[in-house]
Order: sequence, then structure tokens, then C-alpha cells
Amino acid sequence: MLMQTHEARLAALRTELARRGLDGFVVPISDEHMSEYVGSYARRLEWLTGFGGSAGSAVVLKDAAAMFTDGRYTVQVRDQVDGKLYAYEDVPKTSPAKWIAATAQRGARIGYDAWLHGVKWAEQAAAVLAAKGIELVPVDGNPIDAVWADRPQPSDAPAVPHEDRFAGRSSADKRAMVADWLKHEGHNAAVISALDSVAWLLNIRGGDIANTPVALSYVIAHADGTADLFIEAGKVTPQLVQHLGNAVTVRERSAFEPALAALAGKTVAVDPDNAVAAVFRALEDSGAKVVRATDPTVLPKAIKTPAEQQGHRDAQARDGAAVARFLRWLSEEAPKGGVDELSAAAKLAGFRGLSPDLRDASFDTISAAGPHAALPHYKVDEDSNIPIPPSSIFLCDSGGQYADGTTDITRTVWIGPGEPSAEMIDRNTRVLKGHIQLATAVFPDETPGGAIDALARMHLWQAGLDYGHGTGHGVGSYLSVHEGPQRISKPGGAFPGTETPLRAGMILSNEPGYYKVGAYGIRIENLVLVVEAAVEGAEGTYLGFETLTHVPLDRRLVDKTMLSAREVEWWNAYHARVEELLAPQLDGADLSWLKDECRPL
Amino acid sequence: MLMQTHEARLAALRTELARRGLDGFVVPISDEHMSEYVGSYARRLEWLTGFGGSAGSAVVLKDAAAMFTDGRYTVQVRDQVDGKLYAYEDVPKTSPAKWIAATAQRGARIGYDAWLHGVKWAEQAAAVLAAKGIELVPVDGNPIDAVWADRPQPSDAPAVPHEDRFAGRSSADKRAMVADWLKHEGHNAAVISALDSVAWLLNIRGGDIANTPVALSYVIAHADGTADLFIEAGKVTPQLVQHLGNAVTVRERSAFEPALAALAGKTVAVDPDNAVAAVFRALEDSGAKVVRATDPTVLPKAIKTPAEQQGHRDAQARDGAAVARFLRWLSEEAPKGGVDELSAAAKLAGFRGLSPDLRDASFDTISAAGPHAALPHYKVDEDSNIPIPPSSIFLCDSGGQYADGTTDITRTVWIGPGEPSAEMIDRNTRVLKGHIQLATAVFPDETPGGAIDALARMHLWQAGLDYGHGTGHGVGSYLSVHEGPQRISKPGGAFPGTETPLRAGMILSNEPGYYKVGAYGIRIENLVLVVEAAVEGAEGTYLGFETLTHVPLDRRLVDKTMLSAREVEWWNAYHARVEELLAPQLDGADLSWLKDECRPL
Repeated sequence: MLMQTHEARLAALRTELARRGLDGFVVPISDEHMSEYVGSYARRLEWLTGFGGSAGSAVVLKDAAAMFTDGRYTVQVRDQVDGKLYAYEDVPKTSPAKWIAATAQRGARIGYDAWLHGVKWAEQAAAVLAAKGIELVPVDGNPIDAVWADRPQPSDAPAVPHEDRFAGRSSADKRAMVADWLKHEGHNAAVISALDSVAWLLNIRGGDIANTPVALSYVIAHADGTADLFIEAGKVTPQLVQHLGNAVTVRERSAFEPALAALAGKTVAVDPDNAVAAVFRALEDSGAKVVRATDPTVLPKAIKTPAEQQGHRDAQARDGAAVARFLRWLSEEAPKGGVDELSAAAKLAGFRGLSPDLRDASFDTISAAGPHAALPHYKVDEDSNIPIPPSSIFLCDSGGQYADGTTDITRTVWIGPGEPSAEMIDRNTRVLKGHIQLATAVFPDETPGGAIDALARMHLWQAGLDYGHGTGHGVGSYLSVHEGPQRISKPGGAFPGTETPLRAGMILSNEPGYYKVGAYGIRIENLVLVVEAAVEGAEGTYLGFETLTHVPLDRRLVDKTMLSAREVEWWNAYHARVEELLAPQLDGADLSWLKDECRPL
Repeated sequence: MLMQTHEARLAALRTELARRGLDGFVVPISDEHMSEYVGSYARRLEWLTGFGGSAGSAVVLKDAAAMFTDGRYTVQVRDQVDGKLYAYEDVPKTSPAKWIAATAQRGARIGYDAWLHGVKWAEQAAAVLAAKGIELVPVDGNPIDAVWADRPQPSDAPAVPHEDRFAGRSSADKRAMVADWLKHEGHNAAVISALDSVAWLLNIRGGDIANTPVALSYVIAHADGTADLFIEAGKVTPQLVQHLGNAVTVRERSAFEPALAALAGKTVAVDPDNAVAAVFRALEDSGAKVVRATDPTVLPKAIKTPAEQQGHRDAQARDGAAVARFLRWLSEEAPKGGVDELSAAAKLAGFRGLSPDLRDASFDTISAAGPHAALPHYKVDEDSNIPIPPSSIFLCDSGGQYADGTTDITRTVWIGPGEPSAEMIDRNTRVLKGHIQLATAVFPDETPGGAIDALARMHLWQAGLDYGHGTGHGVGSYLSVHEGPQRISKPGGAFPGTETPLRAGMILSNEPGYYKVGAYGIRIENLVLVVEAAVEGAEGTYLGFETLTHVPLDRRLVDKTMLSAREVEWWNAYHARVEELLAPQLDGADLSWLKDECRPL
């Protein structure tokens, strides 16, 4: 029985902790690179508790255990995790550290794996526990790994070169930029431990994490422009070695920790938001001088090169044709009944797969029928799958990974027969107005995303409506579909980035929505590129957005009388461009459908 | 000669510093309450250097001295302060502490008056200097006072009761609220040192600072609902004593410091943003436990009672009639020539003075002709005064203090004959559209001001234009015309408050503008009250604004074709209400003018 298994796993962990003289252990969802998504080898929390969400943690004490999740997972955690084994705790009402401080005994020794926690977490948690006479101790080897008999091996996918024609900038040039920064700041080296930073800096890609084409590896970049890449030997091909050249030394992944220790006496920059506590400990224990500084690749990675910008346009046009084929198919099949969330997602994946350039999905497709669409982070699986009811709204949020760009698009469509309700049309039109307001916004250079978030919400707010998620996240170039540092969201929210100045070359999503719990959900998402706005007589530099995503929006969900002349103009110009880009890729019924969808409103 | 005088003053200060064994001294603009505006007795920086701006500081060392001002005062500081005596330094490029650290010698002892500096400044400056082996030492008595022979005495204006019918809440009730908070937090007392907080808590007003009706005094509020008021005996009338009642002990202002020392062993809440370093030192030296917490009166003071809200409406209607009379007079006289900035301001003051309820101006009137209007903080005096040229734009920003409310209004008008340029009309119409966009905004409860600032700028941004100041500041009730904690401004700017949630009952200005350097300036300012928005079907609590200020806007500066139907509707409804409120107070030519100005656009 599954529940017995989780009970047995918990018991085995407790035995292992006792063997090591520990009174408890903290189990996060993370890997050694603080990745948002992690490989199956690192899904320790799921193995231990059954929890399959993407954010949460557990604490196991001798006589108590608890699961910590936020509001998004209140229902899911109760479905997946046995309440007899784990108390359900809500963050940010409490936190693992607070809960331990209130639950564990004075003198207790609580273990944590310093390779899986950020340094700030470790410092703050240690302080909270110390105030109660409880010690937070780093473990030597993760105790879960010791009792997880059939733990998957980390992926052995090869790391491959990412061509300069896509990157638009050579790795040597990027390393020289980092070296200039190190010299300017007076540092000797920088530890680059975020997987997408490593991939960007060396112009390499990998296959170790689903949906994000990165290779498990670390870099130590030196002030002379050279770098050490720490990676499993099995991932290294002759092509990779040739691509990396003489200035990059390829070393075993296991050599990383000793290499940190060898930086004794050097000044080393490490990003506390990107690197785990163990990196800081290894450096500090060796006598290196650690300087906490933002990963120097983060900002240049966010500002796409002209080649990357063009790559995104090309990838989007290709991806748009696949989504258009899907929407055409859906408009024909779904009103008959018989299409369900999973089969729709599979069909979409099939259309995307027609392109030989597709490398992967950029995230798990959100294929959401009826009330499922009201859950912004809904993930369909065999258990949750429902048929798409005729005469309903269907929401699909998906994306592809191509060598020239990463896509992310949401379309909300009316599944006939019949007409959407007046309320649905009103809500969708307000979401559309917000989407257009942001898409056509002009704003001063370096305006932070938090300052313009309201533009996407103002038309919903007028009706006393809102959506409970951010408006725009950054997107990588054949990298992570969620990439910082920029973000368009309510200022002061839970996620960082709303104070980051927007700069020309950044790519973000533009995805306002509306969710009626238990009924339906709406979201309109295109990716946009920040560009200098060509405004005659502008006093200073002003920015705007170029929309990158081109797929028809559903006109049946729009009330034209609610749109201003300027908004109708945007709609018509957008669809003219959609037709221009997609028509050459479509034929037959697909082409007819496209032309019909793209006629002026 | 004036310059010799400042040289002599500087020399006298240096002699005094040497006598005390000090190698330098920091001179801020401040008083013992960290007031924005200070009494003449506290204008030490102006006496020493000649600088008359409202923000800046000086540092005097043995062989060097410097003036520190921000971008607003780049020109003015060079006009007023002798460059042979003081180096001009720009903040935030540098700061007094950084400059001292770079200029003074290791081992130097730099004095500062702990009664004039915030505790955070003192701590940060001490740390910066300590890193260079320089000591920051509090002085015993301000050395400038020792050499300022004819220093004005602090005002001896009486403190007077502020009637409950205006305050809407008794002092006993307010003190009970503070006491509840103290008990809940486990504190024994709170030090209330901001002058407007004292005035609000005790329902008293004073006349010690121009334009802001406060009395120089401190309060120590206790957890049992009693309070000690520290104030010069000469200000205390029998009426005041009767008003304060038995629960408030009136003590000499000089007893404040000993009273802090007497709190030994108690837990005392002090606001580090409101109280000077000396308060913290006195408490800490005595052995009191100091808790840094926001002044508990700040938020309830900002959320106006129904009586205060109605008071603002009444005061605005009264004030609006005065401004209307002024604008009518101006429209007749100024086109002939012969009106200058000072005479216009005097005329406006005269119209305001017709009301027996006027107590004071709420700030120095900004009466700005031609290019002067392009300086958002322009202050007219005998030296700067210029005639208002016919056929030009005139900007007037002014306000009154009434027992029932504080007003603040800016009108920008075309002075005939002839017509404004197309550019002026375009700019003014964009400012107007931003003003309307904000005035009609609906947003979720507790949205911070930084999230909606863009609404007031978006129409300017579309044309590559902006304004270099905030959009809205809080306003007191017969208190300071600049009152926190709320603010509508670009998030992450120089002033705090953009992250403060807006709440129903708060009052703010709505004052977008546009400034063409060397040519003209535009600003449209009304005060607005945050109210719950009545939106049918709203999902949750939504807020909006009720406009409080009612005075015609200049239709000659508006291009109706640039306005949406909704905006024209706002204009017409606004002017209908202006006419409704002001017509009963006007007659003859004033009434005819009003009716003409208020006819539909």
C-alpha cells in the first residue's frame, strides 16, 4: 500500500537520523544549483512524503513531522500526503525554522543538507533555532539518499555546444565580460552555480532537467577570462571539449568542492540567491574571502543579443503555426465532445512535434477545461483529467524549447456549440484590454516592472475584478521559461524582480487573466520583447514592447463595443501580422481557419 | 557685506569647535522633532551659510567645509552660498559622512547635535567614520547657538484645543488606542516626538511653525492611557489644561530629557523615522529597553474620521471660492500686463483671507510665471519676482489652513490675449488625462501607491514625456500639508511611502504635471479622499477616489478631441459639481465667470 510505503520511508529516515545522532532533518525541494525544477534524482521530498507540488518542504523530528506548503497547495498536499504522518503547516504563517523552534526540545540537533539550501536560509534558520538552544547542523551526505534504495541516478545526457549563431555572442566574449567585472571589483574568481548561468556563460546546453535544457555542472570563472567547468565525465563529448577551447578546463563534478577549498586566500564572488550554503561553507572554511554579489551573468543573460531576439521571433513563428493547427483542430473536434484535457495536450504536443526543430516542451502543458481553468497552476494528469465539455471555455498554456528560442503562450477559447455567456465575454474583453494596454505601453527607460503592472489590471479593477498571479515573468533563450531578474507584478509581492529596471532586449510574458472559482478561467499570454520606443520628440529614452507571439485570439470571446478605437486597431494589426507570419506555414483547412480568425474585428 | 558675515560666522564656529576640542561639525536642516519645516530659531544652516532651500546640510572641518544638496538646489546653492567658503557637493553622489571619511584625518573628532539627527543617520554615519578611524561625537549644546548672537527665540504662541467636532475622535479615545497597542505589544510607554503626532494625539494645535499649526512639544504616552506633555509653560493656557484633562500631565519642555531617563527599566517604543538620536541615547543610557516601532499615531492619523472627511469637504468648498475669485480676477487683469508673481500671490492670499475661518496658508504659495513654472519647487521672493507676461501660461500652487481641513491646489491657466500653442494644449491635455485616470481609478483594498502611479503618467509616457516628482502626497487635517505614511509615486524612489497600502479614509494629492525647462510648466492638482468603490459584483473590497477640491480647470488648455467619452463625462460632471458648490458663495462677475467656466466642454 502506498501509505504504508511512505510510513516505512519515514521510519527508515528516522532510524538513519538516530544512527547519525540527529534529532531531526529538513527536506526541501531543491538541487545543488537551487533550480526551480529538479531532476528525479533530487525529488527527495516527493519520495519521502508523496507530495508532487513544485514548492514545499518537510521537517522530520523523532516524534513529529510536518509538511510546509503555501496557499497554492492547500488542497493538493491533503490529497497526496498522509495526515497521520505529517502535520499540514501553511507558509508564510509559519516556516520550518519557526515550527522546529516551537516543537523540538532545547539541545536538539537538527540536520540539513547544505547542498540543498540557500545560504540566507541556513543563516536565518540557524539564528531562529539558536535562540531556542537548538542546533542546525549540516549533514555529511544526505540521510534520505542512504535509505532511498532505488533512487534514480542523475541524468547522463551529454552536454552539447549552443551555437554562436543562436547565442549571438561567443563564450570567450562572455567570459571576458565576467573577467572585466572581476578585475573592476578586485575579485579573483566567481562561482557560477545556477545551471542556466553556466549554460549561458559557456554557450552549452544539456538534457538533465525536464523542459530546461541545462547540464548539471558548476563553473569557477577567473579574472583572466579562463574558467573551470565541473561536470560528470560521461556528459563530455569531444565536440564539447572542442567547443569549450583551451581557456575552459573540464573537470569532474566531484572536483568542485576541493576546487573551492583550493581558492584559499582568494577573493571569490558568490551570489547568495543562486548558490547553496555548502559553497559558502567550503570557501569560508578554506580561508577564501567570500564576497556576496549578484551572479554577473544574470543581467547580460536577460538582455538578449540581436541574434537571440531574432531567434525568438523565428521560434515563435514556428511555434505559432503548431498552436494554430491545434486550435483549428480543437475548434472542430471539441464541440462534438470526446476530447479531454490529456488528449488535447497530446494533440498539441503532436503538432509541435511536427517541427524538426522542437527540442522539448518548455514546461508541462496546462490543459484546463471548465473549472480546472480557474486554477492558474493546474497540472493535468491521469487522475485529474476531465473531458472538455462542449459549450465551455478551454484554457491552454504551453510552450516549446527550440535551439533559437523558448516559447510560452496561453490561449483561451470558446468551445462551441452556442455562444459564451455575456459575463464570459465581459471578463475576457477586460483581460484583453489589459493585455493590449501593456502591449502598447510606453514608459521611461529603466522603469521597474512593478510600476507598470497596474496597466494590465486597470480594466478588471474597474469592475472589481483581479487575478492572483503576476503579469509577466522573464524568459530565457533556449533556457528556462522562468528567468530573472525582471518581473512585471504587483510591487512588494512574494517574488523578487518587481523593482528590477526594465531594459531594451529583455523578454517577458504579458499574461493577465481572470479566474472564476468553480466555473472557468481566462488568460491571454504572449511573450513580448522590451524595445526602445520610437516616439517623435521624446524627452529621453522611452521603452515599449514588441509582441513576439503570433497566434489568433478568440474573437467569439470579445465584445467589440467595449474596445476603444485604438484597441480595435491593435487587434486588427496584430491579426494581420499573425496571418502574414503563419499563412506561409499552413494550408487547406488550417489556412482557411487562420484567414477567418484573422479577418478584421 | 553679506559674504563677509558668512565668513565671520564660519570663523566663529571654527573657534567654538576648537574650544570644545572638535575637529568638525555637521549642520543639518532640522529641529528636535525631525520636522519637514522648522521654526526660525532652528534655521542654523541658513544662518551659517546663507542657504535658504528646504533640504541640505553642511560640514565644517578645520580647513575645509562643504554644502550638500540634491539636484533640486544645484543652481540655488551656488547663488546663495559662497563657493570660497564651502565646496558644493551633490547628494546622493556623496554624503556628509562619506565626505568626512574622505576628507578628515584619522583620529579626528567630528561633532553632531544628537537632537537634530535621526538615529539611523547617527548610527550609519558613525559606522562609516569609524572605518576610517574618525569619531562621531554628540555635542553638549549646539556650538552654532553659542556663536549665534541674535538667534531668534522659539515661538511663544499658545497651544490651543482642537475641537472634537473637527477631530471626530476624542484625545482620550486616541490615547486608549495607543494604550491598547502598548499593552498588546507588551511595552510600557511610547515616545511621541513628531509635532503633528503630538497634535493629533492630544487634539491640540499651535503656532510655532509657519504654515503647520503645531506646538513645539513632546509626549510620553503610557500603557494606562495617561500621557505626559512636555511644553514651554508660556504656551499653556487654562483652556488647554482644561481640554487636556486629568489624564494628561503638563510638564516643562526641559523636563523631557530627565523624564526619558526616568523610564529606566521600562520598555519604550520609539519611531526611528520620527525621533532624534538623542531620544534613543537618553533612554538607552538610563537602562530603558528601547523598541524601534512605527509611531502608533501615524496610521490612524492618516485614516481620517468621518468628521475630518466632512471638514475637508467644507474647507475645500470655502477655499475653492477664494481660488475661483482669484482666477476670475487674474483672467481679467493679467492679460493687460502689470500683474507679477508676488502681487498675484498677495491677491490670492487676500481672497483666502476674506474667510474668517482661514488660519494660515498651508505652505508658501508657488506663483510661477513663464519659465519659473518649469521649476516644480519654485518659490517667489523679491529677488526672483517677474511680471506675468500676457499670452503665457501661469501656474499657481497654494493652500490654506482651516480648523476643519488643510487644502492644497494647483491650477495652470492660460493668460490671454490669444491662444495657447498646440504643444501647450497637447501637454496640458495629457496631464489632464493622467489626472482623470487616477481620479477615476478603481483598485483593490490596500494597493500601495507605487502600484497606481503609472496611471497618472501613462498618457504623457505615450508621447515620451514625464514629470520629475511624485504624483500624490498625504495631507493632514488642519495639520501638515505633507503627511505620511502613504504616497503615490514611482516605486523605489527617494521618498518612503510608495509601498504603504492605501486605505479608505486617507487623503492624498493628485498632481501630475509637465515641465518644459526654460519655457513653461503645467500641473493639475486636486486633493482626493480614498473611498470604498461601489462596484456591483466586485469580488472583494475595492477602493477609488472622491475628489475633494472643486475649482474650474482651464478649458482653453484642453483639446477635447484627445479626450475619451469617459474623460469628457468626468470633466462635465466635475464642473457641474464645482458650480453647485461654489455658485452659492459667489455673485456678480465672479458668478458669471464661474458659470461660463463650468459649462459643458
